[in-house]
Amino acid sequence: MSTRNLSEADLTDAVLARLERCEDPRFKELMTALIRHLHAFVREVGLTEAEWFEGIKFLTATGQKCDADRQEYILLSDVLGVSMLVDALNHKKPTGATESTVLGPFYVEGAPDLANGASICLSGGGEPTEVRGRVLSLDGKPIRGAVLDVWQTAANSLYSSQDPQQERYNMRGRFRSDDKGAFFFRTVKPVSYPVPTDGPVGKILNAMGRHPMRPAHIHFIVSAPGYEPVATHIFAKGDPYLDSDVVFAVKNSLVADFKPKDGGILEVNYDFALKPA
Amino acid sequence: MSTRNLSEADLTDAVLARLERCEDPRFKELMTALIRHLHAFVREVGLTEAEWFEGIKFLTATGQKCDADRQEYILLSDVLGVSMLVDALNHKKPTGATESTVLGPFYVEGAPDLANGASICLSGGGEPTEVRGRVLSLDGKPIRGAVLDVWQTAANSLYSSQDPQQERYNMRGRFRSDDKGAFFFRTVKPVSYPVPTDGPVGKILNAMGRHPMRPAHIHFIVSAPGYEPVATHIFAKGDPYLDSDVVFAVKNSLVADFKPKDGGILEVNYDFALKPA
Repeated sequence: MSTRNLSEADLTDAVLARLERCEDPRFKELMTALIRHLHAFVREVGLTEAEWFEGIKFLTATGQKCDADRQEYILLSDVLGVSMLVDALNHKKPTGATESTVLGPFYVEGAPDLANGASICLSGGGEPTEVRGRVLSLDGKPIRGAVLDVWQTAANSLYSSQDPQQERYNMRGRFRSDDKGAFFFRTVKPVSYPVPTDGPVGKILNAMGRHPMRPAHIHFIVSAPGYEPVATHIFAKGDPYLDSDVVFAVKNSLVADFKPKDGGILEVNYDFALKPA
Repeated sequence: MSTRNLSEADLTDAVLARLERCEDPRFKELMTALIRHLHAFVREVGLTEAEWFEGIKFLTATGQKCDADRQEYILLSDVLGVSMLVDALNHKKPTGATESTVLGPFYVEGAPDLANGASICLSGGGEPTEVRGRVLSLDGKPIRGAVLDVWQTAANSLYSSQDPQQERYNMRGRFRSDDKGAFFFRTVKPVSYPVPTDGPVGKILNAMGRHPMRPAHIHFIVSAPGYEPVATHIFAKGDPYLDSDVVFAVKNSLVADFKPKDGGILEVNYDFALKPA
């Protein structure tokens, strides 16, 4: 393998040859494919030096936009469809199991454990909503003690992690299914909202001619011993962005009706079905 | 184009379809190729969620390692051979023209203008060396007033931008060719050195089983009105890393002999030939 005077034609092989002492076969496989695709991209588009430098600056700025409460690289992965592709590859669910969707960049660990019937709203605003449902096995049996980690935007369309005016765990909570597999919490109807556009990802969305909107949804991670956890959403039926979600995450099986009940309060019913681990 | 229930098979087309309102044809071309290759990579290796998250953390950490004096993303591009590939695509030089090589992450703008014969060493250590040569046109005519922006490591193998003990412009300077196209400066012999290994790039070099060494070299950007500037190096003949440069930058035409002259001082002669703009 020549290691000097490397031309456009033989650079890729020279870089790959340097993996000869890589001891982890899976890491070698990942780096081999990454280097091949990265080089193929550069060659295919005939990347100019100015474009390369814009790319360097974009990648740098995306990293620097991240902090304890913001993950701009997850957002980038989301808007480029990579997150949903990874999800599709890793969560092939059997018929009847609740489908997964993107985790998103706004999950915060450590949400408080709340009793069924409690509200996740620590401040006002929004249309009062009751969320009820059950956690079931694939054969329809109730799963008791399943944990439902729940989060959503406040009425101002921001997650608490985006909004210093909100308490850290506003619109977040962890519930447990009861003996009948049932859960119940109070919230407000989620609203459609833009992903953050004040960072590098906002700039490329704009440059791509894309809107930054997500259809209204409530996030869930539902887990129970002996079952595969599912990270998913319940989307609000009728939302204008269901067919153009900026992160490509909508599945029809996850769309639910937020229906008015007596007294003008909204109610949504959704049952989760978990695949065995 | 379906926009819900996207599977592994149709996600890529769905993401590409969202470029329909992209107004810049070149940006659209770049994003189309980028999305295709990124998705193909994920699909080809069957990226797991844990691997995806390691990737997110790596990209984030790489951005966060960058500051005014350190560019970890350029270093990443360099060690993956991307920088030399971009160089090869953009600098196809005619026979006789000085070949370009990687700029690297250690260039600092604003180095002082120095007179021919001056030394770039503001502190001690190393083997005293005189660097002489000419800047020529392709037909061998001297180019007067060409600017040679020069930088290299100090004897401790660090660039001033890596080392708070060095003055900002230690081992850096800008020279101009005289009426005969000649330049001359004093320095110390450059040493082979490791690229920084205390960041994310160091970690993946280690995981790939690669050493971090570059063969000894002096950096130059040579420019003159009417000519295409060239960013290049002079490498030291005999260096043990000429055949395994961590950034794949060695070209035989750039290797020069650092020869002892009277009094034990080293001397290197190198002529640059510039391509017309």
